[in-house]
Formats: sequence, C-alpha cells, structure tokens
Amino acid sequence: MGRGFLLVMIQQGILIVLSGPSGTGKGTICKQLLLCNQQLQYSISVTTREPRSNEVNGINYWFTSHAEFEQMIHANELLEWAQVYDNYYGTLRSYVCNNLDQGRDVILEIDTQGAMQVKAKFPQGVFVYIVPPSLDELANRIYKRGTDNLESISKRLSSASKELVSAMNYDYVVVNDEVDVAVKKICAIIEAEKLKVQRNIGLIEAICHNQL
Amino acid sequence: MGRGFLLVMIQQGILIVLSGPSGTGKGTICKQLLLCNQQLQYSISVTTREPRSNEVNGINYWFTSHAEFEQMIHANELLEWAQVYDNYYGTLRSYVCNNLDQGRDVILEIDTQGAMQVKAKFPQGVFVYIVPPSLDELANRIYKRGTDNLESISKRLSSASKELVSAMNYDYVVVNDEVDVAVKKICAIIEAEKLKVQRNIGLIEAICHNQL
Repeated sequence: MGRGFLLVMIQQGILIVLSGPSGTGKGTICKQLLLCNQQLQYSISVTTREPRSNEVNGINYWFTSHAEFEQMIHANELLEWAQVYDNYYGTLRSYVCNNLDQGRDVILEIDTQGAMQVKAKFPQGVFVYIVPPSLDELANRIYKRGTDNLESISKRLSSASKELVSAMNYDYVVVNDEVDVAVKKICAIIEAEKLKVQRNIGLIEAICHNQL
Repeated sequence: MGRGFLLVMIQQGILIVLSGPSGTGKGTICKQLLLCNQQLQYSISVTTREPRSNEVNGINYWFTSHAEFEQMIHANELLEWAQVYDNYYGTLRSYVCNNLDQGRDVILEIDTQGAMQVKAKFPQGVFVYIVPPSLDELANRIYKRGTDNLESISKRLSSASKELVSAMNYDYVVVNDEVDVAVKKICAIIEAEKLKVQRNIGLIEAICHNQL
C-alpha cells in the first residue's frame, strides 16, 4: 500500500477554536490563516436568521428554520449554540467532523461561552486564546477603529480585563503584537498538535507492524 | 517596566527530552537543532567515569566521584541516572533548572528508561519520540552504516519494534524521513509549547493588570 495513501487515512484534521477579547484582531488573524493555509476550512455556522440578498446557503451560513434548529439541539447535533435576540446560531458537529475526516483542519472563531461548549463536547479540539500586548494597546486599537466613544472604550477594557481570566481554560495563548508573527505562531501550534502521540496511534502501530 | 525585560522574567526555558530506537538519527537531529537554535543547550551529563585526555569538565561531562554521585542520588539531585558497568551516568536537576531559569531551552537525548525517570520527576518537560519512516527503512539505514552484521541488524529491528510501543508514553512523535523536516517539526513543537497557557500564567496576569 502506498505510504501517502495510508497517512491520509490515519491523520485526521484538527479543530482550532479561536477566542479573545473584542479588538484583539482575531478576525484579521483568521483571514491571514485561511490565506496561507489551503488545508484550513472556516467553520460555517448554522442559523435561523433570514439570508441577506448577497448571502448563499453553505457559503455564508447554513440557513434553517427554528423548528429544525431546535431539533438539532435535542439530537445533540450542535457543538455549540446560542440565541441572539430572536435567532439561533450554532456549529454543526457533522459539518466539522466531515471536514476533519477528510484531513482538513477547521477554524472556529467564537466567544468564550461558545468555546467552552465546544470543549465539553469536543475536547480533542485545540483552544487558542488571542490577547492584546497590553490593555493600553487594546484601548489604542479600539480608539483608532473610531467606532466607540470613550465610555464605550472604558466598558470594553473592563470587560476585556475580566474576560482575560478565561484564557486559563484554553490550551494556548498568543499575543497579537504583529499579525504576521501571531499567524506564524498559530501555524506552529497546528503543526505541533499534528505530532501529538494521541493523534498518531495508528501511525505508530503501522510502523511497528511495518505496514507503511 | 520595559516589556522585553518582563517577558524574560516570565518565560522559562523548556526541557526537551528526545528518544527513539537506535538508528533513527536522533544524534543528527540533535546536532542540527543545536546549530539552528542558539537558545538551545545540550544537557551535559554527570558521570563517575575517568575523563579521557581530550575531555573537559563542564563541557563533555561533569566528572565526579562514586561517593559524590551516590550522595546526589540520595539527595534527589538527579532527574535520572543509570549504572553502566562500573560507572554511573546521570542528569543534574540543578544544571537543567539553572539553564531553564535563564530562559534557555535544554535538550536531553536519552533512552526510554531514562526519559521515563525524567517524566516522573519533571512532568513539565516535553517528551519527543523519533521514529523511522518504517522498519524496512530502519534496516536499510543500519545496514548502510556498516557497523552491524545481519544477525545484529535483525536483533536491533526486533528490539526497535518492541521499543516503539514506549512512544505512547511520550507527548509527540516525529517521523525522521528527512532530517531537515524532522528538525523543523521539533522547532514547531518548541514554539508551540512556549505558547501553552500553563507556561504563560504570569504573562496573562500581567496583561490583566496592565503591567507590560
């Protein structure tokens, strides 16, 4: 049997869950990661909200009805879900697992509550928390963005300071000082995680039995 | 307080423990790692054997007496030790920890028995198991080395196959197909390990309190 073929069979993709306080640049990091890693798939959420005119089912979201979403909750088909105003948003376990089974890594950018739901249901995921270099720098970035007034910035900082405690529940912490450096670090995390012994039991057994 | 200074205070070095069956190329990987990573320090063993004419204390080995070595054992000053014929060999905890405290990573190339002793005493170490691409390839390499006859090669393969099971007790497994690729993978492991949340509690707390 060809070696490449067997390795593809053995090595599953990895689910990377990315969180961090608002303003740390998670979105930019995610985009860069997707650009430089063709094996990486952005996790598409399922939602009950109406599609906008430019949105396509299966590209921007999976669109579904309230009844179907509630059925998914009861059937434990979601790795995480939340209700925002009148609508549901969630992550389909089958969508993530299908990608992983095909050897693609999946990246999920989500708040800490969602991430902890995923961790409970999918502990083999890799949980990365992005932090700003300092709260001062975070304040600068939010100020420069120009979307918040001083009171709102102060609120954001106070909530960021509280939220940083949740970093302790993650596997890795990455300081987003420069985007390129942060992206390189996350690539190293993905590379290292793929070398973890528990993700390579099949490979070790195959070598032991000389089947490669 | 300057940021660089505080980061140096926070980030300890990492102890990397490297094992693998004879003939997998651990030695070559180690040398390459030391060449391309100035922050990496090869772990110098302590031994009771007589220094050879070209050997220098503190460079090749730490040379010591039998009585002193046995005192080190009883005082729990060794991360691991073994007796080979009439002499003792071991790894000084203080030597490793002094390097780690100064932010240098330490690499220790050692057999699986030694590695498991280190793991029991220093679980925060990073345990990497090097494997050949296949047992066939391992046989080729040992044959090409020209130091073993066929019976000896067959013995080595049988013991390699048994030893591979101990990979399960390590954190990472790296296939040494091409040395450069294996070295790059170990560099990724070191980079990722430094981002582990449990190695960065001080950093997270400092950001929370805006002390960077």
